[in-house]
Amino acid sequence: LYTNLGTAIARIVGRTTKNFPNDFDPVVRMWVYEEMIGNEKLSEIINTRHENVKYLPGKIIPENVVAVTNLVESCKEANILVFVVPHQFVGKICHELRGKIGKDVQGISLIKGLSAPSAEKLGGVKLVSDEIQEILGIDVSVLMGANLAREVANDDFCEATIGCKKMALYGAMFKNLFNSENFRISVVEDAHTVELCGALKNIVACAAGFTDGLGYGDNTKAAVIRLGLMEITKFVEHYYPGSNLQTFFESCGIADLITTCYGGRNRKLCEAFVKTGKPLDQVEKELLQGQSAQGPLTAEEVYYMVHQSGLSEKFPLFVAVHKICKGELKPQEMISCLRQHPEHL
Amino acid sequence: LYTNLGTAIARIVGRTTKNFPNDFDPVVRMWVYEEMIGNEKLSEIINTRHENVKYLPGKIIPENVVAVTNLVESCKEANILVFVVPHQFVGKICHELRGKIGKDVQGISLIKGLSAPSAEKLGGVKLVSDEIQEILGIDVSVLMGANLAREVANDDFCEATIGCKKMALYGAMFKNLFNSENFRISVVEDAHTVELCGALKNIVACAAGFTDGLGYGDNTKAAVIRLGLMEITKFVEHYYPGSNLQTFFESCGIADLITTCYGGRNRKLCEAFVKTGKPLDQVEKELLQGQSAQGPLTAEEVYYMVHQSGLSEKFPLFVAVHKICKGELKPQEMISCLRQHPEHL
Repeated sequence: LYTNLGTAIARIVGRTTKNFPNDFDPVVRMWVYEEMIGNEKLSEIINTRHENVKYLPGKIIPENVVAVTNLVESCKEANILVFVVPHQFVGKICHELRGKIGKDVQGISLIKGLSAPSAEKLGGVKLVSDEIQEILGIDVSVLMGANLAREVANDDFCEATIGCKKMALYGAMFKNLFNSENFRISVVEDAHTVELCGALKNIVACAAGFTDGLGYGDNTKAAVIRLGLMEITKFVEHYYPGSNLQTFFESCGIADLITTCYGGRNRKLCEAFVKTGKPLDQVEKELLQGQSAQGPLTAEEVYYMVHQSGLSEKFPLFVAVHKICKGELKPQEMISCLRQHPEHL
Repeated sequence: LYTNLGTAIARIVGRTTKNFPNDFDPVVRMWVYEEMIGNEKLSEIINTRHENVKYLPGKIIPENVVAVTNLVESCKEANILVFVVPHQFVGKICHELRGKIGKDVQGISLIKGLSAPSAEKLGGVKLVSDEIQEILGIDVSVLMGANLAREVANDDFCEATIGCKKMALYGAMFKNLFNSENFRISVVEDAHTVELCGALKNIVACAAGFTDGLGYGDNTKAAVIRLGLMEITKFVEHYYPGSNLQTFFESCGIADLITTCYGGRNRKLCEAFVKTGKPLDQVEKELLQGQSAQGPLTAEEVYYMVHQSGLSEKFPLFVAVHKICKGELKPQEMISCLRQHPEHL
């Protein structure tokens, strides 16, 4: 568990576990990928000064949160595993943990994105929670929502949604683990919907970024966001049937979508892409300082999926975002792609 | 039919009616409240230069749109009446038209707001469409959506929702009347939901404005908007049962809500209210140049309604907005009111 969101979440979990001493072990082990900060090890800084100077400077981490640099060591006695790692490391980490964790472990993933099952992109994507579940053989719930790390770390009021398939058994436990005065949790059962909202909203944020870059106003942007949300609901309905429409009203749905389309990095990247006219890779390097934007990747994975299903016409926004990112379509043409949207027929 | 949105809509209707000569009379009469612009009458400027220099300067109005200054004259031969007037004039206008229009007239209202049935605010509000319907004895549909007048007038791509109770009979007709390349229409049957979204979103925009004024970030604002939307759905469910959850996903729902919470005047007013510390009336005068903000009025009407029903606890955001506008609660206390929101229980 690292990254800035990871550290922000560790601060919350460090506090909540102290509040429920009968339910939770007071010690929270946080896996830290070791780095040297000047002459000091990052893990030692965290364990002595209680601050992640690299990923969340200035924020005190509760003393019961302990940094552990050996991945297996950090997880082997855990009953609950919280996954907050960059998307691309999930597979490697899980394979390293395989067979070395307890049997009744409950996992929960905060990772937003989809896993492409093969380099050839043969259509079909995999949810990160399902990937973890398959490798480790444990139940994996998800936590998604409008949770920019900086604001969570500042203890600003925000909300999140937990998707927990075994809600009757573990819903209350997960809620207690994360719910706090300024981090308000709702728990729902259709975990797949929660997770798909978290991944697919990044495609919509790209569309919102193009809209901003082209200089359109509030109405157009709102229309683009709404049409994007409609494609998210249609995608979930088609590929993961059985979702509850109400779940899209949770923080993982509209709230995260709004935040991402106004304040997130995919929006920023795609706005700059239009304004500068530079290739997307180059803008990403210049603008995001080493962080990656999931939107274009997710758009590509989803494109192949709907294309192979013969459903491209039902997802004109998703398709347009992919083609614009690839340079196959000019950003200026996006709105024309939306004018005959199935929503308007 | 006047105001800047009125003129923007007249431009659209002027064009669409020409496209369907078998369905619509080619002449669109637009009631204009006569004013002198220098030495010229506004109506004469519109009918000769085809521009509403007061409310929509720089935009050409199709020649088949004719300004008429006598209200009864402008409506007496009409089959369709489009209402786009400031909320507070609806009653007076309808009483003037009573008995002087055809029997089979179909009305459609673009007016956002609720009518308070009495000065004593005895609880209970009335929809503007119902008010028109009662006075004139005609069917009244509604058109709502993310439609800031300036952008509609610019022919920017946007969407709108028509709520038409007799959808099978008149849905297609209304769609043809308004739908155009950059003004995309969806028609739904639960007109009350459409209209309530248009009115209640202004309360949420006030809350968003307070949030901005207090300096909160994107997560908090998204949470506030979401909780506001949840109260809108609960309000509709309780007072106007039978709504379709899908309708909240239309342009009249989330799209208009987003636009209003990011770009609208209620947001702007309430942000300035917090930042300046001046009374709301004064800020409104200074900031809105004679235009009025519906949010605080709607919050007051809704407050009395939920208070009298004993439901205040179910609508903490609506109640907090009203109390903050009245000076009974400090803006800083809004977030505390949301922390124990029924959505989080």
